Amino acid sequence: MDKLVNNLKEALKAAGIKDGATLSFHHHMRNGDYVLNMTLAAAAELGVKDLTVNASAIFPVHAPLIDLIKQGVVTSLECNYMSGPVGEAISQGILDKPVIFRTHGGRPADIASGQFPIDIAVIAAPAADKMGNISGKFGPSQCGSLGYAFADAEFADQVIAVTDHLMPYPLVEYSIPETQVNYVVQVDKIGDPKGIVSGTTKITRDPIGLLMAQYATQVIEASPYYQDGMSFQTGAGGASLATAAFLKDRMLERGIKGSYGMGGITSYLVDMLEAGCFESLVDVQCFDLGAVESIRTNPKHREVSALHYAAPRPAVASSLVDNLDFVILGATEMDKNFNVNVHTNSQGVIMGGSGGHSDTAAGAKLAMIIAPLTRARMPLILDQVTCLSTPGETIDILVTQYGIAVNPRREDLIQALSASKLPLRSIEDLQKTAEDLVGKPKPLPHGDKVVGQVRYRTGEIISEIYQLN
Amino acid sequence: MDKLVNNLKEALKAAGIKDGATLSFHHHMRNGDYVLNMTLAAAAELGVKDLTVNASAIFPVHAPLIDLIKQGVVTSLECNYMSGPVGEAISQGILDKPVIFRTHGGRPADIASGQFPIDIAVIAAPAADKMGNISGKFGPSQCGSLGYAFADAEFADQVIAVTDHLMPYPLVEYSIPETQVNYVVQVDKIGDPKGIVSGTTKITRDPIGLLMAQYATQVIEASPYYQDGMSFQTGAGGASLATAAFLKDRMLERGIKGSYGMGGITSYLVDMLEAGCFESLVDVQCFDLGAVESIRTNPKHREVSALHYAAPRPAVASSLVDNLDFVILGATEMDKNFNVNVHTNSQGVIMGGSGGHSDTAAGAKLAMIIAPLTRARMPLILDQVTCLSTPGETIDILVTQYGIAVNPRREDLIQALSASKLPLRSIEDLQKTAEDLVGKPKPLPHGDKVVGQVRYRTGEIISEIYQLN
Repeated sequence: MDKLVNNLKEALKAAGIKDGATLSFHHHMRNGDYVLNMTLAAAAELGVKDLTVNASAIFPVHAPLIDLIKQGVVTSLECNYMSGPVGEAISQGILDKPVIFRTHGGRPADIASGQFPIDIAVIAAPAADKMGNISGKFGPSQCGSLGYAFADAEFADQVIAVTDHLMPYPLVEYSIPETQVNYVVQVDKIGDPKGIVSGTTKITRDPIGLLMAQYATQVIEASPYYQDGMSFQTGAGGASLATAAFLKDRMLERGIKGSYGMGGITSYLVDMLEAGCFESLVDVQCFDLGAVESIRTNPKHREVSALHYAAPRPAVASSLVDNLDFVILGATEMDKNFNVNVHTNSQGVIMGGSGGHSDTAAGAKLAMIIAPLTRARMPLILDQVTCLSTPGETIDILVTQYGIAVNPRREDLIQALSASKLPLRSIEDLQKTAEDLVGKPKPLPHGDKVVGQVRYRTGEIISEIYQLN
Repeated sequence: MDKLVNNLKEALKAAGIKDGATLSFHHHMRNGDYVLNMTLAAAAELGVKDLTVNASAIFPVHAPLIDLIKQGVVTSLECNYMSGPVGEAISQGILDKPVIFRTHGGRPADIASGQFPIDIAVIAAPAADKMGNISGKFGPSQCGSLGYAFADAEFADQVIAVTDHLMPYPLVEYSIPETQVNYVVQVDKIGDPKGIVSGTTKITRDPIGLLMAQYATQVIEASPYYQDGMSFQTGAGGASLATAAFLKDRMLERGIKGSYGMGGITSYLVDMLEAGCFESLVDVQCFDLGAVESIRTNPKHREVSALHYAAPRPAVASSLVDNLDFVILGATEMDKNFNVNVHTNSQGVIMGGSGGHSDTAAGAKLAMIIAPLTRARMPLILDQVTCLSTPGETIDILVTQYGIAVNPRREDLIQALSASKLPLRSIEDLQKTAEDLVGKPKPLPHGDKVVGQVRYRTGEIISEIYQLN
C-alpha cells in the first residue's frame, strides 16, 4: 500500500480540487521554492478558477502568482509575509479582495479554529516516504524545521506531500506523520537549494549596525531579565546577528546560562547553544546550513510547530512566546506610540509582514526594535505609521544609532537602564533628530481601495493597506 | 508564567470537573500506576458523581475503582484492556452500563472523531516542565513512549499533567507539547517503577512455548513476506519473545534486512534493531528498561501516537498497521472460523481486551496466533468463541504445539507452507485433538445482563460480554 500518484495534476484531482477551493503552502523553501508555482500551474492546467491561496509567506520567486491572479485562477490571497513582485502588484491593486495578512502565531490559530478551513494543503517535503511521513531534515532540498506546515497538515481536509527525495518506509525521523497525508507526489526538484537556506549567514560589518548591536547587548545586560534561565529570540538580519554574537561573548564572560533560544534559527544561535549559553533551541524555521545540521543531529535543538512557537490563547493552552524574555525585531516605520510597521515601505508598497513580529512582541518581557534612525533619506519615526503591524503597547525599547528610547509605559526599564551609560532619549527627541537630518515627510497619498488587511494574532483587524496612488 | 497548581483537587476544579464528566487516562504506568487512583480519589473528595472513566487500559492496581463504582462516583467505564479485580467485579455486574471495550487504534479514532468527547484528560507524566511540555523518557517513573496519551492530550477539552519530575522549561525533548496542557500538578510519585517497566523481559523456558516459537519462526521463513523490507510486531509474552529471538538469528544468518519492528517494544526488538534486522522501531509503549533507554537515545527508535500506530481510516489517512507484514498474537479462545477471544477467560470472566490485537490482525499481511492447544484442562478451540474480540477473517494462521492451521481463505499461504516440513493441520482437526485431550466443554451458562460491549476498530459492536451466572 502506498499513496504515490504520478504528478501534481493527478494529486489535485484526487484531492478533489474545484473552483473556489482554498490551497495552503508553507515557506520553508523560502526564495528557492518551486512547489507553490508548480502546484498552481497544475491547477491552472486543470482549468480551476477562483482559488484562495493561504501561504505562510510569499517570496520574489512566487512572481508567477501575478499572472494567475490576472487570469482569475487565484482570486484570494492570505499570508504572513510578502516580498518582491507579488507585493508590488498587490499594492498596484491587481486583486479585488484585500490580502489577509496574519502573524506566524495567528495563522495556525485561525486554521485550528476551523474558521478558515483549508481544502488542500500542499507540503513541500524535502524527504518523504511512500505513505507520507515527511521530514525537512534530509535530501537535496533539506530545510530543517517544517514548523509552519504542521497546522496545515493537521487541519486541512486533504494533504499532498511533494518531494524530490523518497526515502524507505517508514521514515521514522518524520516531522509530519502519514496519518495526516493523503497523497505523495515525487518531482525532480522541490526547490533551489541556494534559495532555501544560506550557506552561511553573516553579521553586519556596517559600523552603524555594529553600534546598534552593542547598544542592544548593553540594554539586555542592564535589564532585570539578564540572568540564568533567560530566553532570547533574534532574527537573521545583520545587526540582529551581531547582537547574538556580542551577547554570546558577554554571557560566557559572565557565566549566564540561558534556557532557550528561539525563532528562525541561524548558526549564531547554534553556536550559542553549543557554547552553553542556552540549554536548548526551539525552531520553526532554519535559516542556514549550520542550523539544518544542528536540528538533524542535536536533540536539544527541537523543531516546533508554529502553534507551539507563537499561537495565542485560546487556540493553544500556551506557546513559547509566553515565556520569552528578550526579542530583537526590526521596523520600517515607527511612531511616537512605539507602533511598528513592517508591512510596507516608506512609499506604501507591501514588502514584508508580521511574521512572528507581533507574536513575540506580545509575549516577550523585553521587546526591542533595532533600526537605523533614517533610511534612504526617510525618517524611521513618523507621527503615525503608514500601516500598523505591531501595536506600540507591546514594544518596550527602540535602539537606533542616535540613542535609545524606552516606552514610557515601562518605568521599570527606564529606571533599570538609567543606571547604565546608555544614551537614553525620548522617542519624540529621536523623531526630531531624524527630521533634522532628512526632513519631515508629507503624509503619503494613497488610493481608496483596500488591498491588504492586517489581522492581529487574536483575529482583530488592526490596519488596512491601501492601493498606491 | 506557569501552569502549576497545588494539587489534583485544585487542578480538577480549575479544569471544571462536574457530575457526569468524562475523564481519560493512559496506561503507560501499567500495573505501577498511581495517577488514575489518586485522580479519582480527589474527584470523590470533591463530591463529584456519575463520572465516565475512559482509560486506555485498567490493571490490577486500579482495584479502588470498584468502591468508586459502588459509591456512584464512577458510573461508566471505557477501556481497551482490563485485567485483575476490576474485570472480575465488572463480570459480577457491579456497573449498570456495559463497559465499552475498544481497540488501541479505535480509541484514538473515536476520540478524534468528536463522537466521544473527553472533558478532562489526566496525563501521568514521568517528566514535565512548568508549562506542561511532557516526556515519558526521563525521571524516576520513566516509561519511554507516551503514544496512547497523544489523542487524549490533543482532543480533550482540558488537560492535566501529573508529574513527579519537574524539569526546567522548556523540556524540549517533549512528547506532548504545552499547547495542549492546561494544568501541571507535582506529586511525590506517579507510580511504582517496579510495576511500570520490567527490569528485563524474558523468553519462555517452557518446552511447549519454545516449540511453538520454532514453528512460528518457520512459518515466517516459509511465507512470501520474509524478505528485505519486512515489518514485524510481536508482544511481550514468553513464546512471542522467543519467536523474536529465533527470528533474529535466522534473519542475521540469511542477511534479511527488515524495515520496522513495532508495538509494545521490548529489549528483544531493540536487540534486533541494533543487530541490523530492522532499520527502525516504532513504539507506542515500552515494556522494559532496555526499550526505554533505546527510545531515549536512538533516533531510529521512534515514539508514535496510537493514531499513527493503529487507527483505521477515515480517522487517519493511514497508520503503521496498514504496512505491517507479520504480527504474532495470543488468544484465550478460538473457533473454527479463526475468530479470537482475548477479552474473557474460559469461565467468561473479563481478563483482557483487544489492545492492538484486532488492529494489527486487520492490517498485517500475515496475522498469526500462537497459543497452546489446551490450558488448565480447557481446549483452545471451541465451536464458538465466548466473546468475539478479533474476527477470524483477519487471522491467517494458528500455531499450536500440536500443529499449524492456516485459514482456508489464505490458499496462497497454504501453498507456500505446504512446501515446508511444518505440521499443517486443519483447525477442525486441531479442535478434535484438543477435545480428545481434555474433552469438549459444555456451553458456558451466563446471566442476562450485558456487562461489556466489544467495539471493533471501525466502531461496530461485534460482541457483548454477559454477567456471570
